[in-house]
Amino acid sequence: MLRYLTAGESHGQALLTIIEGMPAGLWLTADYIDRQLERRQGGYGRGARQRIERDRVEILSGVRGGFTLGSPIALKIANRDWENWREIMNPGLEARLDERVITRPRPGHADLAGALKYAFYDLRNVLERASARETVARVAAGAVARRFLEELGITLAGQVVQIGEVKAVPAEGTPEEIRSQADASPVYCPDPQASAAMVEAIERAEKAGDTLGGIFEVRVYGVPPGLGSYVHWDRRLDGRLAQAVMSIPGIKGVEIGLGFALASLPGSRAHDEIFYSPVQGYYRVTNRAGGLEGGVTNGEPIVVRAVMKPIPTLRKPLRSVDMFTKEPVAAAYERADVCAVPAACVIGEAVVAWEVAAACLEKFGGDTMAELKESFLRYKTRIRRGER
Amino acid sequence: MLRYLTAGESHGQALLTIIEGMPAGLWLTADYIDRQLERRQGGYGRGARQRIERDRVEILSGVRGGFTLGSPIALKIANRDWENWREIMNPGLEARLDERVITRPRPGHADLAGALKYAFYDLRNVLERASARETVARVAAGAVARRFLEELGITLAGQVVQIGEVKAVPAEGTPEEIRSQADASPVYCPDPQASAAMVEAIERAEKAGDTLGGIFEVRVYGVPPGLGSYVHWDRRLDGRLAQAVMSIPGIKGVEIGLGFALASLPGSRAHDEIFYSPVQGYYRVTNRAGGLEGGVTNGEPIVVRAVMKPIPTLRKPLRSVDMFTKEPVAAAYERADVCAVPAACVIGEAVVAWEVAAACLEKFGGDTMAELKESFLRYKTRIRRGER
Amino acid sequence: MLRYLTAGESHGQALLTIIEGMPAGLWLTADYIDRQLERRQGGYGRGARQRIERDRVEILSGVRGGFTLGSPIALKIANRDWENWREIMNPGLEARLDERVITRPRPGHADLAGALKYAFYDLRNVLERASARETVARVAAGAVARRFLEELGITLAGQVVQIGEVKAVPAEGTPEEIRSQADASPVYCPDPQASAAMVEAIERAEKAGDTLGGIFEVRVYGVPPGLGSYVHWDRRLDGRLAQAVMSIPGIKGVEIGLGFALASLPGSRAHDEIFYSPVQGYYRVTNRAGGLEGGVTNGEPIVVRAVMKPIPTLRKPLRSVDMFTKEPVAAAYERADVCAVPAACVIGEAVVAWEVAAACLEKFGGDTMAELKESFLRYKTRIRRGER
Amino acid sequence: MLRYLTAGESHGQALLTIIEGMPAGLWLTADYIDRQLERRQGGYGRGARQRIERDRVEILSGVRGGFTLGSPIALKIANRDWENWREIMNPGLEARLDERVITRPRPGHADLAGALKYAFYDLRNVLERASARETVARVAAGAVARRFLEELGITLAGQVVQIGEVKAVPAEGTPEEIRSQADASPVYCPDPQASAAMVEAIERAEKAGDTLGGIFEVRVYGVPPGLGSYVHWDRRLDGRLAQAVMSIPGIKGVEIGLGFALASLPGSRAHDEIFYSPVQGYYRVTNRAGGLEGGVTNGEPIVVRAVMKPIPTLRKPLRSVDMFTKEPVAAAYERADVCAVPAACVIGEAVVAWEVAAACLEKFGGDTMAELKESFLRYKTRIRRGER
Repeated sequence: MLRYLTAGESHGQALLTIIEGMPAGLWLTADYIDRQLERRQGGYGRGARQRIERDRVEILSGVRGGFTLGSPIALKIANRDWENWREIMNPGLEARLDERVITRPRPGHADLAGALKYAFYDLRNVLERASARETVARVAAGAVARRFLEELGITLAGQVVQIGEVKAVPAEGTPEEIRSQADASPVYCPDPQASAAMVEAIERAEKAGDTLGGIFEVRVYGVPPGLGSYVHWDRRLDGRLAQAVMSIPGIKGVEIGLGFALASLPGSRAHDEIFYSPVQGYYRVTNRAGGLEGGVTNGEPIVVRAVMKPIPTLRKPLRSVDMFTKEPVAAAYERADVCAVPAACVIGEAVVAWEVAAACLEKFGGDTMAELKESFLRYKTRIRRGER
Repeated sequence: MLRYLTAGESHGQALLTIIEGMPAGLWLTADYIDRQLERRQGGYGRGARQRIERDRVEILSGVRGGFTLGSPIALKIANRDWENWREIMNPGLEARLDERVITRPRPGHADLAGALKYAFYDLRNVLERASARETVARVAAGAVARRFLEELGITLAGQVVQIGEVKAVPAEGTPEEIRSQADASPVYCPDPQASAAMVEAIERAEKAGDTLGGIFEVRVYGVPPGLGSYVHWDRRLDGRLAQAVMSIPGIKGVEIGLGFALASLPGSRAHDEIFYSPVQGYYRVTNRAGGLEGGVTNGEPIVVRAVMKPIPTLRKPLRSVDMFTKEPVAAAYERADVCAVPAACVIGEAVVAWEVAAACLEKFGGDTMAELKESFLRYKTRIRRGER
Repeated sequence: MLRYLTAGESHGQALLTIIEGMPAGLWLTADYIDRQLERRQGGYGRGARQRIERDRVEILSGVRGGFTLGSPIALKIANRDWENWREIMNPGLEARLDERVITRPRPGHADLAGALKYAFYDLRNVLERASARETVARVAAGAVARRFLEELGITLAGQVVQIGEVKAVPAEGTPEEIRSQADASPVYCPDPQASAAMVEAIERAEKAGDTLGGIFEVRVYGVPPGLGSYVHWDRRLDGRLAQAVMSIPGIKGVEIGLGFALASLPGSRAHDEIFYSPVQGYYRVTNRAGGLEGGVTNGEPIVVRAVMKPIPTLRKPLRSVDMFTKEPVAAAYERADVCAVPAACVIGEAVVAWEVAAACLEKFGGDTMAELKESFLRYKTRIRRGER
Repeated sequence: MLRYLTAGESHGQALLTIIEGMPAGLWLTADYIDRQLERRQGGYGRGARQRIERDRVEILSGVRGGFTLGSPIALKIANRDWENWREIMNPGLEARLDERVITRPRPGHADLAGALKYAFYDLRNVLERASARETVARVAAGAVARRFLEELGITLAGQVVQIGEVKAVPAEGTPEEIRSQADASPVYCPDPQASAAMVEAIERAEKAGDTLGGIFEVRVYGVPPGLGSYVHWDRRLDGRLAQAVMSIPGIKGVEIGLGFALASLPGSRAHDEIFYSPVQGYYRVTNRAGGLEGGVTNGEPIVVRAVMKPIPTLRKPLRSVDMFTKEPVAAAYERADVCAVPAACVIGEAVVAWEVAAACLEKFGGDTMAELKESFLRYKTRIRRGER
C-alpha cells in the first residue's frame, strides 16, 4: 500500500514528504525530481516568488546510490525565503507573533473557514499551510511515482487547454510530442496560436489587476487494462483520480474522457466499441471513456481534465470583513500569481501519476522492482493474447 | 471514523452493507431507509426491473427499538428476482455455470476490463457486481448518514438539471421546496417545462433504441463552516466528495459551485465576497464556490454537480468481440434502463450525505448523538458570534 | 488490501461479516467454513448455548459455484435463539425495551465502561455486542483466510497448553498430527494426560461456581521468509498478529516464540543460528524467535501464544453496583461457559490466519489465485536457491 | 484521525517523522521532545553510539511560537555520525556501494529475511532501516502525544521490572514518584536494590561477551473510562496497544494487567469488583485488568508490560552463513549495546502515549485543544456523577 504524508508551511523552513511503500530497486535521483519541481515553477503568469526560489529536493532517506531501499523516502525542499521569515514563523517561543498579522480573510481562500475552524486570531496560521506552496511536496512525491511508472513503460503528458476565454484543441500524438510541444510553450499549451493568445490574455488580466483560471488535461499512456476495480466503490480508479485532482488547491471540477459533454450525447455515440486483433489484442478506435470503464482501466490512455478557478488574491481586492473589528474592509493582498493553470497542470500530472502507481502496486504486488516488472509483463502478455 | 463496506451481486441473494462508526442514540427505522430506496427506483426511463422489485431494507444489527446502539449496522436488501437466479448464481457446487454465459463484452461497462483483470471466462462474473444494482447498498448507507445529518439540521436536496440536450435552470428556494418540486417530477427536475421536455427526450431515445445521460445537482443546506480541512490533501472535503460521486457507476465528471464555468471568468467575478452581521455572523451574497473554499466548508450550501454518461446497454447494440471466438459480434444485451439520471441523483445525494456525515463526526467526535449535538451547537454558537 | 467488517448482536438476528479484497478463483464452500464454526463451538466447559445452536454459515455474495468472484464476500450466521429474543432485540419501534433490562455491570466485562461511554441505561445494549458471540463472524472470516493459505501450502495448528494450573508441553510434529491430536481432546490439548487433568480442573471449577482461563498456542507452517516488513512499524507482522490476537475477548497477553521466557535468557541462548544447504536453502535448528525476526517471517513456523483470563461471569457473582440505584449489588449473571480457552484457541487460529493471508496478499499481489500462486512459487524458488 | 510516518536510516542523514491530525493550540517545544530523546539514550548498558550523539529534534513545520497550528508536524533528528557515512550511504550515484558491505546475517535480526525479501546483496540495506535507531522518530512522535495527554491530565510512568534474571517488584505510588525513582536509576528501575543487581548483571554479561533482555512496564494515569471500543475488533484499545508495543524492535511479548498470570487464577480472583461513591464515581480497589475491560478503558490506570529479547548482536558472535559464498561463518558484528531494556521502556512509553492520544482524539474530536478539553471535561463530569 503506497501512502504519503506532506508537511510544511509556505514561509516555514521547508516542505517535506515521507513516502512509504515504494518497492526497492527503483532508480531515483534528486535531479529527476528537481526536473518536475522546475516545471511546477514555470509557466507564464507566475509571481515574483517563483523567480526568487529555484526549488531543489534533498533526499534524506530511503535511497542509496541512486536506488530505492524499500524503506520510507523522505524528501525535503527548503524554502529559500526562510531567512526572511525565521523570526515570524519560528517554531520556538521567540517567534514574533505580533508582526505581519492578517485579520482580513481573502474570499476564495481557506482564510475565513480555516480561522473559524481552528479558532485562530492570525489568519497567517491558516494561509501558511493552505497555500499552494504545499503542492511542492506533492509534485516531489508524484515525481517518484512517475519514475516508478516509467519502469513499466507508463508515461504521462499534461497540457493546458484553456486559459480564461482562450481555448485550445488538445494536442494528439505521442506523449513525447505532446510533452515537448507543451514544454515549448510559456503556458504549457502545445497549440502555438492558442498559447500566444493565452499569454496575451494573462497580460491583459495583469494590467486590469485581475486573474485568470483555466483547464488542463493529463493523459497517461501505456496503461494496461485492469487497474482499479469495480468490486468496491473506494477501489475504483476513477474515484481515486477525482479525489486526487480535486484536492489540488483551486480545482473546482474534474472530468474523465468526454466528461460533461456526455450529458448531451446519445448512448450510441458515447461509448467505445470493442475490436480485437492478434497483434494489438483488444483495442478501441475511440477513447470517449478516457481509458476508464466501470472504474477500471480499459487499456486506452487515461484522460483526465480539471478546471482551476482564477486565483483569488487580486491586486484590486475583493470586499471582506476585518475579523478583529468586524468592519468591512478590502481583503488582504499577498504577492501572488496572475494565472497558475500551467503550474496546476504539472501538479495534476503528479497526483495522477501517484494514483496510477498505487493502483499498479496494488495489482502487481512485489517488494522489488524486478518482481513487480516480471508480474506486470506476464500479465500484459496474457492480456495481449486475449487469454483469461 | 465512519466506514462501510457493501456486498452483493445483481442477481445474487441480496445486497448488503455494514456501517461501522455511527454514534449511539440515532433514531433510525427501516421505513426511513426504504423511502430513499424507493426514490432510487423511481424516475421515468427505468427498465422493467424497477417495477418487479420494490426494495425493502432489513436491519440485521446495530439498531434496537428505533435507536442505534453504536455497534455496526448491517443492512440487507433482498433481491426478489433471486428465485429465478438461484440455480445460476448459487454459491455452492450445484450452480449451473454453463447457463446464461456471457462472452460478448458491452462497450462502456467493466465487462472487458473486468474479465481481463480477473481472468474470467463468463462475463457474468463481472457484470453481476459491476452492475448499478450495487448502489442499492450505497443508498441504504447514505440514508443512515442522511438521518444523522438531519439531527444536526443539515438537509439535502437533489435535482436533475439536464437530460440529453434538455437543460433546466436549477431551482432555488428552500431545500423543502426543491425536494417537493423534484419529487413531483417524473425525472426529479423541479422545472415543470424542462421536466416535460426531458420525458419526451427519453421517449424519443427509447423509440430509437438509444439511451440518454445527463447532469444532476446535489445541495447540502445547514452546513457549518469548518468541515473538511486544508491541512492535508486527503482530508479536504472537496476531494472526498469528488471521489464519492465519481465512483457512482456511469459518472464521468464532478464539479463544485460554478465548476467548469470558472475557466472563463475573471478572478473579480469568480469568488464570494465576505460580509458580517451580528445576526447572521459571516455570510456571502453569492455562492460561486459551492460552499467549499480551500477544501473546507465556508457556511454556504454545498453544491455538487455530476454528469452521467448515457447507459451503455443499447437495444441497438454496439460492436464488440466475442471473447471466446475473438470474432466481431454485437455486444450482449441485458434488460436495461433508457435513462438513469434521476436514480443517479438519488445515489448522488446518498454518497454526498455520507461524506458530509463523516466530516461532521471527524470534527465533532462523540460516541452518542447527544454529545455530538452538544459539541456541534457550541461550535455553531461560537462561529455565529464571530469568536475565535 | 484485505479488510473485513463484522456486525451482529449476541441475541440479535444474525452475525455477519463482509470480506473485501479476496482474489478471484479461490475454492470456497459453506461446509468448509462450517467446520471452523463447529470447532469454535466445541471444547469442554462450554455452556448450554453451544448445544442449542449449531452455527451454519450462509454465503450471501462473492462466491459462485464454489469459487470466489473477487467481489466482497458476505457471510451470515443466523442466531437460532432469535425467535426468543425478537421482541426484546427488535430493531423496530415495537421492541420491548423495558424487559430484561440489566443495570448491574459485571466486573471483567465491558458492561460498566461501555455504559458510561455510550450513556446507556440498559447494559444489554453493551453486552449484546461486547459478547464473545461476535467471534463467530471473525472465525468465519478467518476460515476464508485459512482456505486461501491452504492454496499456498500454508497451514495452521492450534493447541491449548494451559488451563488453570494444568500445563501441557506443546506438541511437536507435523501440523496434521497436532491438529488431529488436538481435535481428539475435549479441550483441544494434544497431551492426553494434561487434557484429562484440564477436564477435571474445569469440573472442579464448575462445582465451585468458578471459572478458568488458560493459554493457547497457534503455529503457522509453510510460511516463506519475507512476510511483513521491518520498514515501517505498522507493517511489521509481529505487531499485526499481536493486535489481532489481543483483540479477542478475554485475551490479556500475547507472545511470540519464547516470549516472556526471553527476559531471563542470555543473548547467546536466545536466538536461532543460521545454516544453509542447497536442498533446504537457509534454515535454523531452533525456533526461539517463533518465526519472526525484525517483524518479518524468517521461514520457520510462526508460533504465537496468548493468555485468556477466566470468564468473568460467575455463578457466585462478584460485587458490583446497580447503575440505577447506585447501591452495592451482586453482578448480573447471564448463562455462560466455565472455560472458553478451547474456543479461544480456534478464534486465535482464525485471526492469525487472517493476518498471514493479508501479509501474503500484500507481498504477492494479484487479482486471481492463479496469478498469486505463480508469484508465490517464483519467489519461493528464488529463496530456496539462495538467490537475491 | 491521528497518524504518523517515520523515515530514516541508522547511518543516513537523519531520522524524521511527519505527524498528521494533531489539533491546533497544543503548547509544544523542541526542548520538551529533546527530554524524551535524552531518556531514550540513557540507561546503563548502552554502547558507544549513545555517547557520540546527543539527539536533538528540529521542528520543521506545524508549530509556530510554541503552539501547534493543526497542520502536519515534521520533526527531524540529525544523525551526527552522518559525516563519517556520507560516502557510504549517499543517496546519489557517488555512493561507495562496495565499501562496508555486509554479507553475514546476524541471527535475531531482520538481516536474512530482509535480504531475501528485498533481494539485496548488501545486508547493510536491511540493517540500516531495521536498526533500533528508527525508534528515535517514534519517541519524538510519542513525545508530542505525551504533551497532548498532559493537557488532559493524563500522565505516563514507565519502569524496568526485570533484566536478565534480576526481577524487581514494580513500584507503586504516584506517577511522579515512579518517574523520579526510575529516572534516578541507571536502568530506570525504581527499586534501588534490584537496580544495583541489574547493573551488575549487565556488567557480567558484558564481560562474557553476552547480552541481556528484560521486561518493562508502562502505566498511564488519569485515563477516563470509555477510550477504545468493544464494537469492532480493530477499535479495541488493548489490541492497538499490543500492536504498538510489539512493533518495537526486540519485543516478543505484551501483556495487560495481570497478563499471563491470569492463566492460573480462578475467575473469582481475576477480576476487579465495582464500587461507587458520590465523590469518586465508580471505582475499583484492584486493577487486575490493567485498566482495560472489553477493549475499553475502565477508569483505572492502564498497565502494559512487554518483554524484550537480549540484543542479538554479540561480541562472541553466533553462527551464520555468508550469503555470497554460502559458507558457514560467524555473524557480522556491529558496535552494539549490551542491554537496551531501559531504552525500550522509554520507547514503550512513547508508543503507548501515541495510542492513548489517538483514542482520546477519536472519542472527543475537536480541531483545537480548547474544544477538545471542553468535551473531555464535560464527559468526565458526567461520568463522575454516574449519569448516563
